[in-house]
Amino acid sequence: MRKKRKLGRGVAVVGAGMSKFGLFKEKDSKDLFVEAFREMRSSVDRGVDPREIDALYLGNFSNDFFTHQAHWAPIIADVTGLVPRPATRTEGACASSALAFREGVIAIASGLYDVVLVGGVEEMSKRTTAEVAEGLALANTPYAGRVGFTFPGVFGAVATAYFARYKAGREHLMNVTIKSHNNAPLNPKAQFPFTIRDIMRAKSEGMKNKGLTVPDWAREKDFLRDSAVNPIVAWPLHLYDCCPISDGASALLLVAEELAGEFTDDPVYVAGMGQGSGRGLHRSPDLTSFEATRHAAGEAYSMSGFGPGDIQFCEVHDCFSIAEVVHVEDLGFFKPGEGFKAIADGATGLDGPKPVNTSGGLKCKGHPVGATGASQLYEVWTQLRGKAGRRQIPNGDLRVGGAHNLGGTGGTCTFTILERR
Amino acid sequence: MRKKRKLGRGVAVVGAGMSKFGLFKEKDSKDLFVEAFREMRSSVDRGVDPREIDALYLGNFSNDFFTHQAHWAPIIADVTGLVPRPATRTEGACASSALAFREGVIAIASGLYDVVLVGGVEEMSKRTTAEVAEGLALANTPYAGRVGFTFPGVFGAVATAYFARYKAGREHLMNVTIKSHNNAPLNPKAQFPFTIRDIMRAKSEGMKNKGLTVPDWAREKDFLRDSAVNPIVAWPLHLYDCCPISDGASALLLVAEELAGEFTDDPVYVAGMGQGSGRGLHRSPDLTSFEATRHAAGEAYSMSGFGPGDIQFCEVHDCFSIAEVVHVEDLGFFKPGEGFKAIADGATGLDGPKPVNTSGGLKCKGHPVGATGASQLYEVWTQLRGKAGRRQIPNGDLRVGGAHNLGGTGGTCTFTILERR
Repeated sequence: MRKKRKLGRGVAVVGAGMSKFGLFKEKDSKDLFVEAFREMRSSVDRGVDPREIDALYLGNFSNDFFTHQAHWAPIIADVTGLVPRPATRTEGACASSALAFREGVIAIASGLYDVVLVGGVEEMSKRTTAEVAEGLALANTPYAGRVGFTFPGVFGAVATAYFARYKAGREHLMNVTIKSHNNAPLNPKAQFPFTIRDIMRAKSEGMKNKGLTVPDWAREKDFLRDSAVNPIVAWPLHLYDCCPISDGASALLLVAEELAGEFTDDPVYVAGMGQGSGRGLHRSPDLTSFEATRHAAGEAYSMSGFGPGDIQFCEVHDCFSIAEVVHVEDLGFFKPGEGFKAIADGATGLDGPKPVNTSGGLKCKGHPVGATGASQLYEVWTQLRGKAGRRQIPNGDLRVGGAHNLGGTGGTCTFTILERR
Repeated sequence: MRKKRKLGRGVAVVGAGMSKFGLFKEKDSKDLFVEAFREMRSSVDRGVDPREIDALYLGNFSNDFFTHQAHWAPIIADVTGLVPRPATRTEGACASSALAFREGVIAIASGLYDVVLVGGVEEMSKRTTAEVAEGLALANTPYAGRVGFTFPGVFGAVATAYFARYKAGREHLMNVTIKSHNNAPLNPKAQFPFTIRDIMRAKSEGMKNKGLTVPDWAREKDFLRDSAVNPIVAWPLHLYDCCPISDGASALLLVAEELAGEFTDDPVYVAGMGQGSGRGLHRSPDLTSFEATRHAAGEAYSMSGFGPGDIQFCEVHDCFSIAEVVHVEDLGFFKPGEGFKAIADGATGLDGPKPVNTSGGLKCKGHPVGATGASQLYEVWTQLRGKAGRRQIPNGDLRVGGAHNLGGTGGTCTFTILERR
């Protein structure tokens, strides 16, 4: 087999924006994307005229289901001033907009375009929670769905397998949750900008005001152990192990490397990209690892020349707390069975040696499915440029960051490495 | 604005296959795609091992809606032996698999891949006709759909505008229908492999057998004028102006130009590609022309160096008979307002100077939405290689053919020019 995993032309990210993530019943997908697009435009140092943009790639999972409209790319092209130029939707479940980013990079590398808008959008809150659960099942109906698995159910099985194999437990997942909640208040775009301690205080106040007895929650884990506030969703996953339903959009501007200086004095480059496919857990020999993630990581490391030790920080697809644990191992940051220990030691905290999900992750930033992948790259771009404000990683010499995005129950995975030279 | 509309590396089509199109309630999307994939493999002169294929791009409009499963690319990657390699779904309504073809070409041109499988699939027949109508509305809900337009309604408005502007009428649309039905019996994959005369004969027999009086249908147009057999759908469009509901899949194998000789002695090359976006008819200054088609055609002609006169034959997106008339003008084959006259003169017949829809078109071959674009390219590839059997264009020196695919009510359009050197 021939293996050329190099791009014919370098690509730089010169702008990025995202809408606030949350529940916005008053906004539609056009409103959300325009919010992200505006921030992206203002982030380009010398500005960008929509007429300079050659094409759009838009990630979206299933606005078909959520909004009764599938064909969103030309609508978004219209509201951003791109018509009649090309607009293409990509779909890979929760990895939809990482695929849009990837296709944008590939198209510039091909020589076809010089300036490409990429991003994603999802509009979920106009459906009931039960309907959203039905909609999310669209990612794995023929296999896991057919035998009654929900998404939390699948990741509950992953957690059970991981616990059994490596002698880990719920306490270890709580470390992931607490860490993400520590980062979220530092991110003005986050859906839940609260630490677990913030939530404990607010709940206590509420109970006091109602004349109820407040439980003795001395530490965060006391709170998370209390099933009255953190009920079970799918054993062993509880409410605070699960990401929320969200609306949101994200956008990045990609340009050919040789043109980056025309847009910004501080470009960030695409160092490596990988994408993998998986069969879902029904055909996985091992529930504690995702084949698609390992393949994507291998491709991205190979293209970039970087290894896991070179990735200074990473956004990791934490649809459930256990997913973050498994993926930091699949990405090679920690050995199999060592991820939960490293997390317990604070390795992935904002001031740890390998910060993970400085944005608050899907858990706290929110997970508007089709917007998530590009929003992870927004975070990496922002951190690399030192513009992450209060959540800026204190390591002063950030050069290399990663973004890992997983679709479905492991069907599609991307890993993208950005670099500031 | 910079305008580099050239690919960094040439791409050849070395194999193509499609399933039979029709209503196949016993087959799912996996079955349909595997049928196309098998024919594609056997069409590659020296064969192809799935392990040689670097990636998959799969076009699908809304199996979300039709099959309650969105995330089909990794499932198709699995059944074709591609996992864990990358698999990406593209969506542009009825142009979904032309976008897959385009992304496959771009990815090879970028240097990232050498051998790419592209294609499309749609599984529509397990829903009722009313549900399918609801599903197709997913392509234009926010605008046309919101004010009550169905798809036939939109194209009925196009026909009304065209008739008024150019003094054409229903009789001219009948010429499109009769021509497509003349080609269809020559295509073993067609859903309706019958001429209008075949249908007249069958209907007459049926009525005679029931003891009913058979109308005096001397010519095809007598039959098409009879609203008992050709009832109105959306004025002025009647049943035989409209394409059917279909199941089907299509697949092509793309390789880097310099590798083509390793796969076949008779490669076909991608000479030009264009893609355009449109706003839908609600914002079109002129209902008798599609902005997205004109833009796509301009890009493809510019990239290829060919003009409309060089395109020896073409598959044109005839979701409705009027669409074929408007598009042969938008593609530059005939001047605005001249298309219906040229068609009346037989210009687009199999033995005419500009054969259009030798496959039978969407009208007779069928229109499994996400499979259509790649199936058009299958037809062009087959004709260029002289392998179209009884429907082979009699012009013995076929070198250049085109495929035009339209999504929604003009939201997405592609035009692709293939060349045999």
